Amino acid sequence: MTFQAEWLRTTLLATSLAFTMAGPVLAGSAPAEFKVTDFLLDNGMEVVVIPDHRAPIVTHMVWYKIGSADEPPGKSGIAHFFEHLMFKATTHHAAGEFDRAVSDIGGSNNAFTSYDYTAFHETVAPSALELMMGFEADRMRNLILTDDVIKTERDVILEERRSRIDNNPEAVLDEEVDATLWQNQPYRVPVIGWMQEMEQLNRTDATAFYDKYYRPNNAVLIVAGDVEPDAVRALAEKTYGKVARGPDLTPRIRPVEPEQNTKRTVTLSDARVSVPSFSTQWVVPSYHSGKPGEAEALDLLAEILGGGNRSRLYQALVVQQGIASGAGAYFQGTMLDDTNFTVYGTPRGDARLADVEAAVDVEVARIARDGVTPAELEKAKDRYVRSMIFARDKQDSMANIYGSTLATGGNVQDVQQWPDRIRKVTADEVKAVAARYLVLDRSTTGYLLPQAKAEN
Amino acid sequence: MTFQAEWLRTTLLATSLAFTMAGPVLAGSAPAEFKVTDFLLDNGMEVVVIPDHRAPIVTHMVWYKIGSADEPPGKSGIAHFFEHLMFKATTHHAAGEFDRAVSDIGGSNNAFTSYDYTAFHETVAPSALELMMGFEADRMRNLILTDDVIKTERDVILEERRSRIDNNPEAVLDEEVDATLWQNQPYRVPVIGWMQEMEQLNRTDATAFYDKYYRPNNAVLIVAGDVEPDAVRALAEKTYGKVARGPDLTPRIRPVEPEQNTKRTVTLSDARVSVPSFSTQWVVPSYHSGKPGEAEALDLLAEILGGGNRSRLYQALVVQQGIASGAGAYFQGTMLDDTNFTVYGTPRGDARLADVEAAVDVEVARIARDGVTPAELEKAKDRYVRSMIFARDKQDSMANIYGSTLATGGNVQDVQQWPDRIRKVTADEVKAVAARYLVLDRSTTGYLLPQAKAEN
Repeated sequence: MTFQAEWLRTTLLATSLAFTMAGPVLAGSAPAEFKVTDFLLDNGMEVVVIPDHRAPIVTHMVWYKIGSADEPPGKSGIAHFFEHLMFKATTHHAAGEFDRAVSDIGGSNNAFTSYDYTAFHETVAPSALELMMGFEADRMRNLILTDDVIKTERDVILEERRSRIDNNPEAVLDEEVDATLWQNQPYRVPVIGWMQEMEQLNRTDATAFYDKYYRPNNAVLIVAGDVEPDAVRALAEKTYGKVARGPDLTPRIRPVEPEQNTKRTVTLSDARVSVPSFSTQWVVPSYHSGKPGEAEALDLLAEILGGGNRSRLYQALVVQQGIASGAGAYFQGTMLDDTNFTVYGTPRGDARLADVEAAVDVEVARIARDGVTPAELEKAKDRYVRSMIFARDKQDSMANIYGSTLATGGNVQDVQQWPDRIRKVTADEVKAVAARYLVLDRSTTGYLLPQAKAEN
Repeated sequence: MTFQAEWLRTTLLATSLAFTMAGPVLAGSAPAEFKVTDFLLDNGMEVVVIPDHRAPIVTHMVWYKIGSADEPPGKSGIAHFFEHLMFKATTHHAAGEFDRAVSDIGGSNNAFTSYDYTAFHETVAPSALELMMGFEADRMRNLILTDDVIKTERDVILEERRSRIDNNPEAVLDEEVDATLWQNQPYRVPVIGWMQEMEQLNRTDATAFYDKYYRPNNAVLIVAGDVEPDAVRALAEKTYGKVARGPDLTPRIRPVEPEQNTKRTVTLSDARVSVPSFSTQWVVPSYHSGKPGEAEALDLLAEILGGGNRSRLYQALVVQQGIASGAGAYFQGTMLDDTNFTVYGTPRGDARLADVEAAVDVEVARIARDGVTPAELEKAKDRYVRSMIFARDKQDSMANIYGSTLATGGNVQDVQQWPDRIRKVTADEVKAVAARYLVLDRSTTGYLLPQAKAEN
């Protein structure tokens, strides 16, 4: 059980292609075997079926439209806490029985929590799909939440926070950068929660949370693999279909950012840091919160400016100037509310961090001032398309694309039309979003420094 | 109608003595004429009477234990909005009637909103006290909140925000410094509210807010001046006593700060800025949230380090080095939750802001390392005491001390025992809070710069 905040952070460059790009084009240019079907059960549960007959495996995921950004004030961490609690005993199954059932048949399973959703998934042989659905449908409503279960699992998440965050200077800095970048929007609160609030989470909180959000009408079922839509529908009705619909939930309208007017820095100096690094972030629109085309342009901007070894930042800082061991940019577009656009760099050898940051700033200013060339833009679009061939082999990435999109305000059509929208983006549109959003006077920069370089 | 965030900020050094110190010692060393009486009405309303017979005037204040830090997420500004709405028509009086009644008898009245409370006050001849109580008791429950009233007054607070904040670079910077200093606690949200949320405030929000918080059992009545407790009690029972008690309110337990681990900066460069300045803030305990003696030690620390022309910062930077036109420190102790300790400086002539900041940092580091001398400490305590003679002439400051203390979790005894607690503070205790809290690696510094000096 991981929480996606860190999962995203540590694997973002690797997964962002698969997450944001692979599936859509895949679906758009869909061979019959990838023809996606979606429908609703009578109790409001959404179902998406992505046939993929190349191997006798199936990826089964349930996405709940509840994440850390939906938590009540003072209850930070409860969404991730609940991800853990979902692996406890139910009225039908002892704790651990589900996990054992999966491993006994040679499958794998896990779960993750993010700002906007909580997801549970298993990869097994198609013959075990009904069993998986039975277990998932059971824990959707039948958890036994005793004070003892709460206390035991709370100790687990507290220890998870200590080991993942508090013992990791980079994670501590990331938390305080987020709390600085976001002045009002709940993405400012860490997914795992603030320690002093996690310590107070109790059974009353958990039960209210469970009853409100763990309902079929707040869930999306994604089944990808060696299955047919009709068979999936029959099994889904037989399992999830038996779960009563819950009360309608109010729209997910959260506090939004005010206009930002300042340049901010966040500095952590720690003896455990050997190599300094920095990252600069801006608040930008997401696929869900932006105007048509903005997020697509930001995706291409991130790819051209800092997406891998062909990007401007890597070529300028790592290859040509040789002052950086790493430099790049990324955009996390699949979010319900406004999201962040990030550039980063790490000096190589004796190079100074300030020089690396200055060189990154030069490239950011240049792309905002002069825009991108048609050739760069076409190459970036080509790289997206080529990345699909790679992504096509990753069944779970396809499931993740549909799940994350549907859990953040999108629908199957948004995913399928996405490649066409990407292809329509012009160089002027990329230049426009760079000029509009990548303004240093309204940025937040985090510095991770060795103790010696403390800037006091 | 002002909102106290700015009121505090602009007049803090002037009012902090009166606010934090004048009353207590006054009360502690109280001549008979200042003997304070407090009691509860049957409906739960607290009453404090501070006789002061030197002049035939009376200060009448009603403090509601509701401030911006109590607002629901996404509804920022509603506490201050409600301060405005309280001057509108009721079932008994037309809008403006209360104001006219006050001015007709040569009195004065106003109101203010802060993070922890909203207060309404009038200063009139004692003969008009019952009239004032009648008006205040009436608007506690009988406001007529129509959509028209809401829309009209909402336009007023939006314009107030534009003129007070958005047209004032210093105020814009202050807002974003607060949103950076506070990572979780609601003091991060501006008292006047975020524009995009103020625009959405509606009659439903206002009515719910009014019915929940504007109740006698959530209010404190302070009457200071040429009156006797028995007479005040009789008038209070005749007016406020007729207002029905409201539902019990849940304790004011708010999200608190996580452990802070980073050094943060917030920079605003603006063409309207002629002289640069900086301020550095730390999160520290308040009188209500701190351990016994901590806030008292922080008050004396602020006085010794930066309280006026005798302070270390003023003497070092303005008098001896001559590099600053102003430098000082302040501590806002009268808050419900943790509060901020601030040092600041402005260069003189051609001096560089960085040199002024470095010189301030030197004094901060020195007082945290070496502490204060017994002589300094005694002089600081003496200055407190001497300031009382001045404060004694300000009847409204006495009312403010009791009102703000009782509205932030304190009681009359806390105020009256305060001078003894201050006198008990040792030099070691002052050094201890300086060393514990004034750590630059966990500070937030705001820079207000002329456009030319933009640090991009």
